[in-house]
Amino acid sequence: MTAPSPVKAPATRHRLYYSPGTCALAPHIVLEEIGEPYELHLISASGPRDGEMTSKPEWKAINPKARVPALLGVPGRIGGAENLLTEVPAILIYLARTGPSAQLLPSDPAGEARCIEWMNWLSGNVHTIAFAQIWRPHRFTTGEEGFAAVRTSGRDNITESFAYIEKLLADGRGWAIPEGYTVVDAYLLVFYYWGRCRIGLDMGTLCPAWTRLSELVARRPAVQRALKTHQITIFETE
Amino acid sequence: MTAPSPVKAPATRHRLYYSPGTCALAPHIVLEEIGEPYELHLISASGPRDGEMTSKPEWKAINPKARVPALLGVPGRIGGAENLLTEVPAILIYLARTGPSAQLLPSDPAGEARCIEWMNWLSGNVHTIAFAQIWRPHRFTTGEEGFAAVRTSGRDNITESFAYIEKLLADGRGWAIPEGYTVVDAYLLVFYYWGRCRIGLDMGTLCPAWTRLSELVARRPAVQRALKTHQITIFETE
Repeated sequence: MTAPSPVKAPATRHRLYYSPGTCALAPHIVLEEIGEPYELHLISASGPRDGEMTSKPEWKAINPKARVPALLGVPGRIGGAENLLTEVPAILIYLARTGPSAQLLPSDPAGEARCIEWMNWLSGNVHTIAFAQIWRPHRFTTGEEGFAAVRTSGRDNITESFAYIEKLLADGRGWAIPEGYTVVDAYLLVFYYWGRCRIGLDMGTLCPAWTRLSELVARRPAVQRALKTHQITIFETE
Repeated sequence: MTAPSPVKAPATRHRLYYSPGTCALAPHIVLEEIGEPYELHLISASGPRDGEMTSKPEWKAINPKARVPALLGVPGRIGGAENLLTEVPAILIYLARTGPSAQLLPSDPAGEARCIEWMNWLSGNVHTIAFAQIWRPHRFTTGEEGFAAVRTSGRDNITESFAYIEKLLADGRGWAIPEGYTVVDAYLLVFYYWGRCRIGLDMGTLCPAWTRLSELVARRPAVQRALKTHQITIFETE
């Protein structure tokens, strides 16, 4: 890691645009897991509405989606518009595929599809809907008078989706993809952290299987390094 | 294609649970593209709230997410719970990977990541949020008095995301992934159809590049076969 570069400078190594405690934690963990050189660039998601993600014109010029995380590749590496890759599942699969020695993806099409199934649902239903309903209700309704009902619906959606996650993880498997630790487990840790530390759910009681998994994930050295940068403590015993 | 099997019967070929005119059209197209034997099973998404997707207990027992599409694999093929794969991007990647002769996925990690980037965003932001806000506002707010404002926000989100799609496609590329036709183009056709035929947008004017792409996609024999089953006509000249 080096000091932040100007927002538009070309990358000489992977550059992760991130905000602490957001879902950028997942690609950050995977960058640490694969051991490839990278740098971080802060685009804060805190503040009114969507923070710097929407208030910083030079960021919106780079990423019209106005979100973090995004991965800037070394020129020619990722290709396409601005050499910038967005969407957490895409970034995670890309990093895992280009750092195969870390073995963060199953090698068979069915296992890989299960990873995408998990991540597409986590990204779309649990993050982009349920948590965003609580934190960013302006994305779902036009008037502030409707925010409270959107937030209540968000709580309901989180309850339902967390119960579903727990049910899947409680069938005796050791990891989200039973064959072993994958990018999905790193991604799941973000939602576990949000549930336990950001919205104060009693995760040990509500989701015991997911808690056991998260403890295992949080103990990994790569994960500890990422959590330290984000200044996050999920479990007292880390 | 054969006559529908009972909802719980094991599959002897791929079985796609679908509802006409839904995003199930995309995996249906890809099944036709790869030429693998399959059967269809109707779970209607029409009707109050989420139709049979939630009102049919035997369907919810198979797919607790209570959505279509879902792909039931031949026993042992997909594995995992009920041998059932959910989430359109996961199904599309899986079918493309297991039917490689159709060449529906780029072979390099960057191209593959771009496919997942497209599909994760289409699935999460354009379908699960924007269109669902219009069609299924009960997912976003707790009281019916808030539905109108959720629907207005959905219209805004569709306008913004369609403009973004058009901007990407108008840069001179021939397909969503510039290297060639992929599963992303099949998935994009669903949203084009919804925009043009289901919510009545003047797509030719608003999105000329996307219209040209959609005409090309709709002309493919595999796509025509799928559209016929769904009883959909997108362009008069098909």
